[in-house]
Amino acid sequence: MIAEPIEDLVRLLARLPGLGPRSARRATLALLKRPDTLLAPLAAALERCAREVRRCSLCGNLDLSDPCAICRDPDRDPTQILVVEGIEDLWAMERTGSFKGRYHVLGGTLSAIDAVGPEELGVDRLLRRVAETPGVEVILALSATVAGQTTTHYLARRLAGSGARITRLGYGLPVGGELNYLDEGTLRAAFEARRPLL
Amino acid sequence: MIAEPIEDLVRLLARLPGLGPRSARRATLALLKRPDTLLAPLAAALERCAREVRRCSLCGNLDLSDPCAICRDPDRDPTQILVVEGIEDLWAMERTGSFKGRYHVLGGTLSAIDAVGPEELGVDRLLRRVAETPGVEVILALSATVAGQTTTHYLARRLAGSGARITRLGYGLPVGGELNYLDEGTLRAAFEARRPLL
Repeated sequence: MIAEPIEDLVRLLARLPGLGPRSARRATLALLKRPDTLLAPLAAALERCAREVRRCSLCGNLDLSDPCAICRDPDRDPTQILVVEGIEDLWAMERTGSFKGRYHVLGGTLSAIDAVGPEELGVDRLLRRVAETPGVEVILALSATVAGQTTTHYLARRLAGSGARITRLGYGLPVGGELNYLDEGTLRAAFEARRPLL
Repeated sequence: MIAEPIEDLVRLLARLPGLGPRSARRATLALLKRPDTLLAPLAAALERCAREVRRCSLCGNLDLSDPCAICRDPDRDPTQILVVEGIEDLWAMERTGSFKGRYHVLGGTLSAIDAVGPEELGVDRLLRRVAETPGVEVILALSATVAGQTTTHYLARRLAGSGARITRLGYGLPVGGELNYLDEGTLRAAFEARRPLL
């Protein structure tokens, strides 16, 4: 005896990552209790995203225009291409405010199980951009996971001989991280990446 | 450099219970990656809820009509009124499929700190319904928390002398619960509520 549109809302919210049936019910009630300040604005934001957001055909970013605002920004250095697994990584990098180049969003990592090959990751598109940009640096900013590193090595091999400078992010202590909580791999990498202080 | 409607979506989703900024970003990307199967249906469900869902003036339930489908259902026994703290509890009770009476949704528990008094909980409305329904049983189905039990005792006192039969839910082992994981209060209640087997 729960009204159908409420059931629909619970069912759809439960499909979001991080929400199960129980938290979807809580979220639904939170929405229904705030029809004007939360429910209606969320409906409007979704509707606007559905209508206006598109994928950038150059870098794979999601934006209101194609090419995206980053690819069109003349102040962003086209000779630095930072390769990330997903949009969430692009967002994370943008939040640092320290990168002023452009991106290539792979949309995943190579995976035989999930049938994700170089085509799905737009590797040819990346190689073309690299070939067209003399003096480019390609920063491979994938996760330090097995899948991320396998893909990093694959990309480095494909990019070898392109004339581009290929780098990866540095390994080491996470800022704010306590030494005795770190795994051995990170600690070893941090030791090897040590820098002179004096 | 994140598009404004996407930022809006993240910000609004982060206001839902159980979602923080990080999971709101993940949820946003999940939505943007499924524009037709998830994003658009969710926008439509929210829009429909905003337009059609209202509060039942008899019991406080949320439904498409006032009075709600439960209050209007002639097959549901009007001489059983189950009092719950919130809609989520009404939904939980409905999922059991075992209750065929009607509800009173308090919308919370008595709380001096949050300035929730009998008026906010619609206690007078409940008392009127009880007075108008000869032979009614009022089942106080509040949480077994301090706030829930304080409110239960207050309601029992207000309902005393109304002629209604006042009951509360039984305490005991949760079904599927392991004895050695139970707190002492529940175990003591279960012992006191023991039933003859042979």
